[in-house]
Amino acid sequence: MRIAVDTLGGDAGPGAAVQGAAIAIQAWPGLEVDLFGPGEQLTAEVANLPRHLAAAGLRLSVYHAPGLIHPEQRPSDALRRGAASSMALMLAHVVAGHAVAGVSAGNTGALMALARRALGTVAQIPRPAICTAIPTHDEGRCYLLDLGANVDASAKRLVDFARMGEVMARHIDELDAPRVALLNVGGEATKGSETVREADALLKQLDSLNYVGFVEGDGIFAGSVDVVVCDGFVGNAVLKASEGLARMLITRVQSTFESHLGSRLVGRLARPALRRLKRELDPVRYNGASLLGLDGIVVKSHGSANATGFSYAVLRAAQEVSRDLPTRLAQELGSRHDSTQQE
Amino acid sequence: MRIAVDTLGGDAGPGAAVQGAAIAIQAWPGLEVDLFGPGEQLTAEVANLPRHLAAAGLRLSVYHAPGLIHPEQRPSDALRRGAASSMALMLAHVVAGHAVAGVSAGNTGALMALARRALGTVAQIPRPAICTAIPTHDEGRCYLLDLGANVDASAKRLVDFARMGEVMARHIDELDAPRVALLNVGGEATKGSETVREADALLKQLDSLNYVGFVEGDGIFAGSVDVVVCDGFVGNAVLKASEGLARMLITRVQSTFESHLGSRLVGRLARPALRRLKRELDPVRYNGASLLGLDGIVVKSHGSANATGFSYAVLRAAQEVSRDLPTRLAQELGSRHDSTQQE
Repeated sequence: MRIAVDTLGGDAGPGAAVQGAAIAIQAWPGLEVDLFGPGEQLTAEVANLPRHLAAAGLRLSVYHAPGLIHPEQRPSDALRRGAASSMALMLAHVVAGHAVAGVSAGNTGALMALARRALGTVAQIPRPAICTAIPTHDEGRCYLLDLGANVDASAKRLVDFARMGEVMARHIDELDAPRVALLNVGGEATKGSETVREADALLKQLDSLNYVGFVEGDGIFAGSVDVVVCDGFVGNAVLKASEGLARMLITRVQSTFESHLGSRLVGRLARPALRRLKRELDPVRYNGASLLGLDGIVVKSHGSANATGFSYAVLRAAQEVSRDLPTRLAQELGSRHDSTQQE
Repeated sequence: MRIAVDTLGGDAGPGAAVQGAAIAIQAWPGLEVDLFGPGEQLTAEVANLPRHLAAAGLRLSVYHAPGLIHPEQRPSDALRRGAASSMALMLAHVVAGHAVAGVSAGNTGALMALARRALGTVAQIPRPAICTAIPTHDEGRCYLLDLGANVDASAKRLVDFARMGEVMARHIDELDAPRVALLNVGGEATKGSETVREADALLKQLDSLNYVGFVEGDGIFAGSVDVVVCDGFVGNAVLKASEGLARMLITRVQSTFESHLGSRLVGRLARPALRRLKRELDPVRYNGASLLGLDGIVVKSHGSANATGFSYAVLRAAQEVSRDLPTRLAQELGSRHDSTQQE
């Protein structure tokens, strides 16, 4: 299995992407990664991989593609002027069949726009969505989508998102009948926006879906549902707020233990536990986000992911490849989409 | 200063409201509280106040009002059939001038509907909003509104919310020029929904407001802004998700220290720090939410608040009374609202 990686655009620089790819290679037998970015730098990064990752270097190839899609660049601008960027060339590599999936930590909007143009969408899905797995109270996970690809979403599009998330949870997490919910401001059918109530009515008609109704924001983490659907504005706000809160809480846990425990000894004993927590407490930084609905597999790594975070995104892509997610989406949504096909 | 308290509708029962009122009385010199709920039970709760709160009993009065607004009751139903409820009678007490503010942990939608009918709104504010203070990274606070009173909000209403939040931060927190931001999916003016971009343009025209532009969800906790404005659907989703995440993280911190620290001793030493954290880490449960824009002061305590949480809601109301918040809102929004008055 060969995955293409855009090494530019992440906060931690190409080095984190190269190391992340190497970590993924060591974790996934048979995986090879083609790296896109500034050739000389990438070659040096591969040559200087830490000792425990050095073996992975043999399964890394470097493609010189130094053009950067700027983090603030508008998608329309990326479409017009980004053809020579590492991101676009990485996607072209996937389209040409040289790799089976693409990963990037760069500009999300540009990635979605370029990927959509390069790969197209699965039949029946006019608008792809961004989807990530959120850790839940019971140490499970919940897929949340859309995370920002569609700031407004009609009821029909929310239904698409529900069905895509359900296919993801069923095939990737091997759940028999993933519980799917709509995010709303209250549990009752009389509450919420008109769009959400309309989507609720449509979802209730889909016998093939284990639709459980509305959840509020805390339902995402509760462990009682497997897929939560909302428009991209809400999903993005919830995800970013969760990131901000998690970061604040980590700092507070750390400073409470470091300064208020009355004993440096305890602080030292607590440090390993804190390190472990740090990773657990920052749920959103440690998962790749899937661009779901594309006719191909593209995973967005968090912009501020370190090498470990980046490796999760690559492994996420590998998982989706191994389950042939786009084909599943095409088959299942094509055959069951009839009642809600028209906008 | 006399505040009316609806003791019904909270998860922790009337006892928590009575004790919360007593805690607030001890913290705020001259405060008296009129309690609404089942008379006999309330009298018994007052008589059985813990020793350290017993003195506050002299400044608690009981009003028999056993009618409950059910937590799931629709606002329209509460308006039609809730006149004899503890919530409605508490509000009538405020309207009659017997108390200067009202507090309830009951059904938020019903409280807003009943309060709006009983008290009316400040001139120029067609739609009140729900607003709470969120703790920030730098140990400050950020007001977030709307939290669910308005699932859809036009650009003009978002401007109203911005101005109300600004008055709140300026008068209650004594900030000279509170930094006001709009919640959006990206920092750039080209991103986001049409409504948000329109509100952005309107806010830029308001010279009297220190409007700093867009923030993403993590901006709420970052400490870089004092007021964050969004529609009630987004605000509610963000608030509830933050609650859910905080609860999950608290559990994880606790279990990590209890089971992985290798030493019961450390666990015991860590327990006081954990207790302190628990309160800090659950930002949203420990603040009252203000019904902002009413011609009167009504504070919603969190439904699952314990006595301490309830006391914060009562003290929040006392603070707003002491700063005469509705008058400030009427004066400042009346005089500066001209350009955005019409819907």
